[in-house]
Amino acid sequence: MIGTTHLAYEPLTESSAAAFASQLGIFEEGAILASNEIGDGNLNLVFRITDKQTGKSIILKQALPYAKVVGESWPLTLQRAKIESEALKIFGKMCPDLVPAVYFSDEQMAITAMEDLSSLSIARTGFIQGKTYPLLSSHLGQYLAKTLFYTSDYGLGTDKKRLLVKEFTNPELCKITEDLIFTDPFFDSATNSFEEELRSEVEKIWSDEELKFHASLLKKSFLTETEALLHGDLHTGSIFASENETKVIDPEFAFYGPAGFDIGQVFANLAFQVIVNEKDRDTFLGHIGTTWTTFVAEFTTLWKTENKEIHSIGEQLLSFNLQKFFTDALGFAGCEMIRRTIGLAHVADLDTVEDKLRRIETKKQAISIGKMLIKDREEIKTISDFLSVLHEFVG
Amino acid sequence: MIGTTHLAYEPLTESSAAAFASQLGIFEEGAILASNEIGDGNLNLVFRITDKQTGKSIILKQALPYAKVVGESWPLTLQRAKIESEALKIFGKMCPDLVPAVYFSDEQMAITAMEDLSSLSIARTGFIQGKTYPLLSSHLGQYLAKTLFYTSDYGLGTDKKRLLVKEFTNPELCKITEDLIFTDPFFDSATNSFEEELRSEVEKIWSDEELKFHASLLKKSFLTETEALLHGDLHTGSIFASENETKVIDPEFAFYGPAGFDIGQVFANLAFQVIVNEKDRDTFLGHIGTTWTTFVAEFTTLWKTENKEIHSIGEQLLSFNLQKFFTDALGFAGCEMIRRTIGLAHVADLDTVEDKLRRIETKKQAISIGKMLIKDREEIKTISDFLSVLHEFVG
Repeated sequence: MIGTTHLAYEPLTESSAAAFASQLGIFEEGAILASNEIGDGNLNLVFRITDKQTGKSIILKQALPYAKVVGESWPLTLQRAKIESEALKIFGKMCPDLVPAVYFSDEQMAITAMEDLSSLSIARTGFIQGKTYPLLSSHLGQYLAKTLFYTSDYGLGTDKKRLLVKEFTNPELCKITEDLIFTDPFFDSATNSFEEELRSEVEKIWSDEELKFHASLLKKSFLTETEALLHGDLHTGSIFASENETKVIDPEFAFYGPAGFDIGQVFANLAFQVIVNEKDRDTFLGHIGTTWTTFVAEFTTLWKTENKEIHSIGEQLLSFNLQKFFTDALGFAGCEMIRRTIGLAHVADLDTVEDKLRRIETKKQAISIGKMLIKDREEIKTISDFLSVLHEFVG
Repeated sequence: MIGTTHLAYEPLTESSAAAFASQLGIFEEGAILASNEIGDGNLNLVFRITDKQTGKSIILKQALPYAKVVGESWPLTLQRAKIESEALKIFGKMCPDLVPAVYFSDEQMAITAMEDLSSLSIARTGFIQGKTYPLLSSHLGQYLAKTLFYTSDYGLGTDKKRLLVKEFTNPELCKITEDLIFTDPFFDSATNSFEEELRSEVEKIWSDEELKFHASLLKKSFLTETEALLHGDLHTGSIFASENETKVIDPEFAFYGPAGFDIGQVFANLAFQVIVNEKDRDTFLGHIGTTWTTFVAEFTTLWKTENKEIHSIGEQLLSFNLQKFFTDALGFAGCEMIRRTIGLAHVADLDTVEDKLRRIETKKQAISIGKMLIKDREEIKTISDFLSVLHEFVG
């Protein structure tokens, strides 16, 4: 591997990406490499580099110094490439089967070379096409339990954890979440985007002082609680899936936050399918249930067998933590459901419902469920309660 | 100022301290300086440097690469000198009248040159000698409100706050607090130290699962909540006082933690005087009350007038935060009262009670109050409730 470090940043092209990849010691010397840019260009360049002879392939991902969301563009530091590659390495150690392997990373060039997952599909896209991925939720429960336990004070020890909190200081991407999830949707902000037919529902949100108070509590939790190293953007567009495999990608929003945030984003993005997918509704309710029950079983085992806080292994503290994660997750899920319906960044699950009346109806359901989860999260004590309530809202 | 930076660390002597001070541009050129080491040598060297002619004086404080507590010695990085000088500068900007002025600091040499406060006394020492410092608690209420508000997400803005959290990562000194306040006193740890007459009380602590559960919750809050930049060691030995003045010193334990921690240490250390000082009991109950009411009044003004989170200025979030700070403060005060009675580092308030029977009695009261505050902190809703309960325990 020559000449790949200490390079000044410049965006790769398909041909320079191939040249770069050939120097990484991943492909045979002299291999003829095909290079295709396959990203959506909003935040990153994504190249698939393939050895034409053997078919072996990798992904080369490079951060761009700006973000584009729905036509808007703003500058972003390249530091997020380092956050992403370091987070992939850490999460990959904890659950190697559920995270793409990282072969190489370079901070200056903001590049990560990683496993090519092209044989899998983005879960959200698959859902919309009618796939349900039977193992997805038990995999996600495992992923959540392992990443959230092993990066906590209990799994890592308090000293090492404090250093990781420092390493994963991520103000720029956290600010995006703060604004787009916790603030803008609850006020008449320029970033909001919704059909005129939803205006009366949206104005009710803006004038609901109790709802806004609860959203500000959830925002406070996001800003001040360093329970675990989070993925930070764990929606179903950050998950590759097939019938047998699940891989969690794109942790560039990683930071230390409340454990319930990652869990809540999974809940919310599965709940969109509960709303729109009448045919597979029970399957997706089942996915939500399995995510949580798998999480609890695995987290409990880790708590009891690998706890670094030897004086904290009592059942009472475990139960307290699990209940807190659940309550927080419901609240964060509520925020995610509202912002994905009326905020800046929507989800295709709702936006691709073709019949307009039906689409507005599903969006109203998403808003109602979101409000209920934010305000009544303390009342919903168990996963069965949650599933019953969801069923009621869409039934 | 010549030659003071980029020096390799070495501990100063009285004569090298004078030579160092003469280069700082603080004294007139050619001034003849007297130098006296006045520290207790446990963590730091403390020199008073005086211009023999003008009487002008400063303090030169230098961190030592180890800590001595009750005869034990362990290594400590010098980074804490930087934490201390940076925290003094930050807190000093917020409340210049309540924090010693910093004239100079050097990270390599682990030195801070600061205002000489020799005209004041350490508050704890003054209390034991019968002083009560009438303005102490209104000053402390102001100090707590300003430092805890201006360093919070609300006072500082979320971006700047995330960077300060990173800067004030302080794992080594936080670990001391974690062990000595939240863990060791609740288990039969080698660091504990108590009179044999207290053994049955202490063994009751070790077998009280509910108490230990609540202590583990408070520890979790200490480990995971980044509400504000704390002093981190705000007992009455870190406060200089006179009839008119109050100065908060020694923030080498500074880190981002739960706001109630600093408030709770003030409560607990004033409560020791409520226990031992029958003559001035009402004065010290008054000090606790005034600390809290001044804090609430000042914090409320700052919240309403200087809130950077423009969408969070509502009364409901303010009330929630104040109630949370109060509840947390009671719990942290309880931990402080127990650890100062049976843990590694005691307080002179209790240890200097000469009559042994009376001393054991006061220590039992401190333990009982501590347990009650930890377990029943949610039940004690107001400052009047707290003062009544305290009065009942010692009455």
